[in-house]
Amino acid sequence: MRRTVGEKPRRSWRSWLIGRPLPTADAPHQTIGKFIGLAVFSSDAMSSVAYAPQEILIILAAAGVTAFSYSIPLAFAIVGLLAIIIFSYEQTIHAYPNGGGSYIVARDNLGAFPAQVAAAALLTDYVLTVAVSVSSGVAQIASAFPFLYPWRVWVSVALVLFVMMVNLRGIRESGITFAIPTYFFIVMMYLTIGLGIIRWLTGTLGAVVDPPEMEFAQTLQTVTPFLLLKAFASGTSAVTGVEAIADGVPAFREPRSRNAGITLLMMACILGSLMLAITILAHQVSALPSESETLISQLARTVYGERGILYLMTIAATMIILVMAANTAFADFPRLSAIAATDGFLPRQLTYRGSRLVYSRGIMALAFIASGLIIVFQASVTRLIPLYAIGVFVSFTLSQAGMAHRWWKSGHLKAGEEKVERGSTLRFDPGWKYKMIINGFGASVTAVIAFVFGATKFTDGAWIVIILIPLQVFIFSSIHHHYRRVAERLSLEHFGAYPRISRHRVILLLGGVHRGSLAALRYARTLSDDITAVYVSIDPNEAAKIQKKWEIWGEGVRLVILDSPYRLFLEPLLEYIEEIDEQRQANEIITVVVPQFVPRHWWARFLHARTADTLRKVLLNRTEIVVTEVPYEVH
Amino acid sequence: MRRTVGEKPRRSWRSWLIGRPLPTADAPHQTIGKFIGLAVFSSDAMSSVAYAPQEILIILAAAGVTAFSYSIPLAFAIVGLLAIIIFSYEQTIHAYPNGGGSYIVARDNLGAFPAQVAAAALLTDYVLTVAVSVSSGVAQIASAFPFLYPWRVWVSVALVLFVMMVNLRGIRESGITFAIPTYFFIVMMYLTIGLGIIRWLTGTLGAVVDPPEMEFAQTLQTVTPFLLLKAFASGTSAVTGVEAIADGVPAFREPRSRNAGITLLMMACILGSLMLAITILAHQVSALPSESETLISQLARTVYGERGILYLMTIAATMIILVMAANTAFADFPRLSAIAATDGFLPRQLTYRGSRLVYSRGIMALAFIASGLIIVFQASVTRLIPLYAIGVFVSFTLSQAGMAHRWWKSGHLKAGEEKVERGSTLRFDPGWKYKMIINGFGASVTAVIAFVFGATKFTDGAWIVIILIPLQVFIFSSIHHHYRRVAERLSLEHFGAYPRISRHRVILLLGGVHRGSLAALRYARTLSDDITAVYVSIDPNEAAKIQKKWEIWGEGVRLVILDSPYRLFLEPLLEYIEEIDEQRQANEIITVVVPQFVPRHWWARFLHARTADTLRKVLLNRTEIVVTEVPYEVH
Repeated sequence: MRRTVGEKPRRSWRSWLIGRPLPTADAPHQTIGKFIGLAVFSSDAMSSVAYAPQEILIILAAAGVTAFSYSIPLAFAIVGLLAIIIFSYEQTIHAYPNGGGSYIVARDNLGAFPAQVAAAALLTDYVLTVAVSVSSGVAQIASAFPFLYPWRVWVSVALVLFVMMVNLRGIRESGITFAIPTYFFIVMMYLTIGLGIIRWLTGTLGAVVDPPEMEFAQTLQTVTPFLLLKAFASGTSAVTGVEAIADGVPAFREPRSRNAGITLLMMACILGSLMLAITILAHQVSALPSESETLISQLARTVYGERGILYLMTIAATMIILVMAANTAFADFPRLSAIAATDGFLPRQLTYRGSRLVYSRGIMALAFIASGLIIVFQASVTRLIPLYAIGVFVSFTLSQAGMAHRWWKSGHLKAGEEKVERGSTLRFDPGWKYKMIINGFGASVTAVIAFVFGATKFTDGAWIVIILIPLQVFIFSSIHHHYRRVAERLSLEHFGAYPRISRHRVILLLGGVHRGSLAALRYARTLSDDITAVYVSIDPNEAAKIQKKWEIWGEGVRLVILDSPYRLFLEPLLEYIEEIDEQRQANEIITVVVPQFVPRHWWARFLHARTADTLRKVLLNRTEIVVTEVPYEVH
Repeated sequence: MRRTVGEKPRRSWRSWLIGRPLPTADAPHQTIGKFIGLAVFSSDAMSSVAYAPQEILIILAAAGVTAFSYSIPLAFAIVGLLAIIIFSYEQTIHAYPNGGGSYIVARDNLGAFPAQVAAAALLTDYVLTVAVSVSSGVAQIASAFPFLYPWRVWVSVALVLFVMMVNLRGIRESGITFAIPTYFFIVMMYLTIGLGIIRWLTGTLGAVVDPPEMEFAQTLQTVTPFLLLKAFASGTSAVTGVEAIADGVPAFREPRSRNAGITLLMMACILGSLMLAITILAHQVSALPSESETLISQLARTVYGERGILYLMTIAATMIILVMAANTAFADFPRLSAIAATDGFLPRQLTYRGSRLVYSRGIMALAFIASGLIIVFQASVTRLIPLYAIGVFVSFTLSQAGMAHRWWKSGHLKAGEEKVERGSTLRFDPGWKYKMIINGFGASVTAVIAFVFGATKFTDGAWIVIILIPLQVFIFSSIHHHYRRVAERLSLEHFGAYPRISRHRVILLLGGVHRGSLAALRYARTLSDDITAVYVSIDPNEAAKIQKKWEIWGEGVRLVILDSPYRLFLEPLLEYIEEIDEQRQANEIITVVVPQFVPRHWWARFLHARTADTLRKVLLNRTEIVVTEVPYEVH
């Protein structure tokens, strides 16, 4: 018998359990076009232009203001890197029409260990996306409203908790929810840049009035290759988030790979042009990198000539897209967890994504870790950046190395031959060498960058991530090992059968003789004829009353009264159960039946013992003892 | 059948449950003499001389240093008050050889409402005993080691948590544990006072060298009756804790009432003499009340002439007895809770005092509330005092009014007639009028003082307690009402019988087909022949495998596969259970059997769902559905 349920949860008595509807990317029946797709999948990537140009300047500042001119070639280098990554991901999108996240690509093509590394890198990345995006968002508002600056840590934490609450409540995310803020951001950015270029060309742009104060080091460094590499590494934070479209291919309208591919190109063009334009214009207006006023803010007020409505709209748009970027991490984290859990690397409960309980825990964990990072790093984007991009580049590398290996394998098939491996179809492709070179080149470049990043930023905080990723991999492996061992031990191979249960003893726990205990007795009688009622007595008078009442109502079931002179409750009971257990014969099972009062009001819960829960906890390692509670209630 | 167990809990697998042995006062077989009795029951009372004289001066300081001389008559007035209370309590001790705490006396003689007021006042009092004693104890050490002064709040909180930990671990309190610090304190106090008097009489005492700085108000008040009443009210904190012996009569060796009575007198003499001597000597050496150095410290260093070993021993003795006083509140709080719970005013689980779970909660609640008070009131005894004594005097009043009413009742019996009321024997007493007058007078005096205290300290914080006590009474009444209503509804009067269960349907939840699920099937078969196995499927391939395996191993039990396209788990299951429930016939019962994996390591707990717990929570209000988990484990 087979049935489909769960599509229209309705009744209120379990509404507290219903998780939020799955995000757009997962809904199987509703697909989106390029216009909405761009909005849904690119907030993370595009929002990074709010901090990447500034982070380049902060590193260059070690060599003084004159070094700032290096920011322009560095921005071009980053756009070049973006092009390589995009080129590489275009191939992933066409090879994985069902979604090719780094984890899946690494798992299918490289094996379990690289997949675990990718998962660790990505989970770290999601946490940092929340911390960096929210910190940068708050830095934007604090630029417009400087009185917020001293409170930036707590405003950031409050914002993270707000996004957490929104995700816990379960908002219904639609394409429109994403489209409005994303396009608002794109419009405001191009307006700022366009007007900036016009004023530059007409010679009316000028420099930032009253720029923020900046501290330069006492002795300026010279511009070394190391410094340039470090500045470049900071700038690579601009390419974080570009893998989102490759993850989300199945959400696109057919031909989905084609639509997703075009969207990826659109996003790359917007991201690249913003990155270049902001860097160049910021240099033109002599903006200074600072914790107290962001580059975007300095640029916007110089272009608009005042802190007017357009300025505020630009700041607001930037802030909102940064919060949207954090929000996507809240959707990605449980999704990746579910996939990794299916493969046995994370607790299996995460497989079922709908269960709100599991969902909530993941969402809260993400929020609390991100808040912790914000507090430790004082909501400073500059101090968080060294932790950020390394995970991203590790996952890029693994994903593209996986793709390269895939082309190599497909090159060794015969023409026209097809091979299905873990849900994705491998077929011979005449251009496999060319494609392998593209992905292989992408993998090499991103591997080098991951290495450069780790080396240049090691002491600034990258070491934390370099420890965290192997640690996570160790945890994943331990979990995997645990599940495998359990599965082996529970396996039915070479298993005969359990002997039939020969005797079923029931212990009925009495708190008194009333309708509730009679309901439990009634239930106990369906289990076995061998029932013993047990009452723990701290007052002999009370016990005598119970005994009399039981003689009338107990249907002849024998009653054992456990005197407890020290007014203990659980200890005498456990001792009695243990005695019974010691007399237990082979294939005899014991069930402890506990009447459980169910109050009508939540507060009354505290007025009634949860004896069954406690017994169950204590007796859980006794496989031949089952604790059953029979609920009774006041109607 | 009847058996006594629980006297020698032994096995380790439940050692985590074993509460600490009951404090000396409760142990039925071990009684104590006057010498130990004085130590056990008087730390709370005697320790109050560490702060009461100082608190009088702090109030008088509003009228300048010249007003300090009023402290001596006020100390005499307080000793007079002490005499009245002691006189009154002597009668309680003889009337209640089984222990006559305020709650019991009020309940037995005045009724449920005054008893609830007494309970509320006492519980508030215990919390404040902890906060005041520990704050005063830390003020003593900070006097000797001034570098601790800025940390006094956190040192106090740490000390409260330390006492909490000691109580959670369950120390075995013996008479000796109490005797050493108490007699150490008495010796050090009399040494300080004796030497002080000798030096005073020989004219070598002098004044405090380098007294602490004190801020006087800009405009000095004149000495008004209100000010004197307020100072007197502060000083009444000296008589807190004297009811402890009346509570603890049964702990004394026979003739217990006589022994307890003598001990009470001894305690009163020591307390009274210390109160007077400290006040007089402090005035003599011109000690100034201050938050940074206590009166005891100023007195001791003046008497000993230096901050030497005797000085440090005096400070240490004072500090230790104050911590002992806090410790007794940790024993009294659960004891009173247990008694009030037996009467249905508090959650019934508290009746069983031995259960460590319940114990721990009470101890932790007390520690956290007291810590909260310490933090809010910055570990300032002066700021805590306005909250303190009001509860004490309310309970004194109720206890003595109860006694007065008791004598009145006994006066209306015939000579030689006896009447047993709630465990205490009422018999005609020829001197009933005289005794009624004593207790009545005590009640009137303490009632007036409670009123004076509330009025003079209202704005200083007494209002908090004046709100808290009625609030607690409201909670107690609500709990009482709840239990009564439940008892009525569950009553078996006019109850016929439940119809016998005609059909027992079992739903066996499968997570897979393995030894664990077969163990659960084996159990399920003992419950009923009507079993349906249910599997929630998110992957059709997996479901097909399960189905095949079940055909081999399922012993012909039918299997329902619930497809869950949205990857929900609980929702489809609940919907299915609800469907079954809707078809349920009269007197049909449903049991959901859930195989529960029990891991060997605690961390593995997180890797396995606790489905049964969740189902039980959701289905708890369905009285005809029972959720049973069958544990299975890896050996």
